[in-house]
Amino acid sequence: MNYCSHCGAGVRQEIPAGDNRLRYVCTECGMIHYQNPRIVAGCLPVYDNKVLLCRRAIEPRKGLWTLPGGFLELGETIEQGAVRETVEEAGAEVRVTQLYTLFNVLHVGQLSLFFLAEMDSPVFAAGEESLDVQLFDEQDIPWDELAFTTIRQTLEYFFSDRRQGEFIQRTGDIDYNSAMTQSRHVGSV
Amino acid sequence: MNYCSHCGAGVRQEIPAGDNRLRYVCTECGMIHYQNPRIVAGCLPVYDNKVLLCRRAIEPRKGLWTLPGGFLELGETIEQGAVRETVEEAGAEVRVTQLYTLFNVLHVGQLSLFFLAEMDSPVFAAGEESLDVQLFDEQDIPWDELAFTTIRQTLEYFFSDRRQGEFIQRTGDIDYNSAMTQSRHVGSV
Repeated sequence: MNYCSHCGAGVRQEIPAGDNRLRYVCTECGMIHYQNPRIVAGCLPVYDNKVLLCRRAIEPRKGLWTLPGGFLELGETIEQGAVRETVEEAGAEVRVTQLYTLFNVLHVGQLSLFFLAEMDSPVFAAGEESLDVQLFDEQDIPWDELAFTTIRQTLEYFFSDRRQGEFIQRTGDIDYNSAMTQSRHVGSV
Repeated sequence: MNYCSHCGAGVRQEIPAGDNRLRYVCTECGMIHYQNPRIVAGCLPVYDNKVLLCRRAIEPRKGLWTLPGGFLELGETIEQGAVRETVEEAGAEVRVTQLYTLFNVLHVGQLSLFFLAEMDSPVFAAGEESLDVQLFDEQDIPWDELAFTTIRQTLEYFFSDRRQGEFIQRTGDIDYNSAMTQSRHVGSV
């Protein structure tokens, strides 16, 4: 950030009065420009015991497989965002059944949330941001070609929980900067 | 938003290629400035069956009572943000026990998350953003002087669930623009 989005003057980094963090502050109008984590919302769509994955057509991780998901927009709920992204990227209509995983992805400033979702029919198609969309049985999941740690962990939890017969909400922290990656049940944060 | 924070030129609202929403786009360098919901993280701190509330020293809702909470910062987890805000606003150390409520607060573009948390001792003190901090028994909660709908609903769920003997994660949508306020168990989104 170089310029104030309000008045166009230059910004500098300083710790405002009553604050304890460096912020971008306008040198003219004094506006403080906070930067905050963003929310990624997605679905784990299931049809006939198979999971729907998308092969990314865009960076980062172009060519690798992911669950449909993306940045939450103003004016929509996390469920609406997850469903919208599933339509946009995978051409699939889903019914969300539960909030399943929450990941603090610290090195990119994101909170990623994935919902379990059901498809009523095997209708899907690659959207603009996808090269391919396919339903995968567990034994066919492309584990070596998954785009993100959040996707791998969500899928691992899903297949493990399915064997146990109960889907337990999970939360985890991922930080490539500190190589800290921890996961836990949501009941034991 | 009037100016590009990257190059300082003017911005205009347009729908970028491949997008379907109005964005602020720089008229010179072409940078797209997305605006996304922000995350509010807070705690419901409990000591000896009492709940810790803060009376707000700042707008909005100055003078009304709230649970400690605030905007998540880059580089921290939602639990860390909730615990930090509890230290800053209420001077209280807590142990988070579970993620309890998630609210889509659509008219202000926020996702609010509250954790249940335990205090090991009745140590608390008003921080810079609080006029007062007090422990309240259920019958003494200032229901007519609560700052936000998210706080009222989280407290209502808490006392109801405590009577039932089980704390169930809840999610709800609040939108003062459309007067839509819905709540539900997280298992029935």
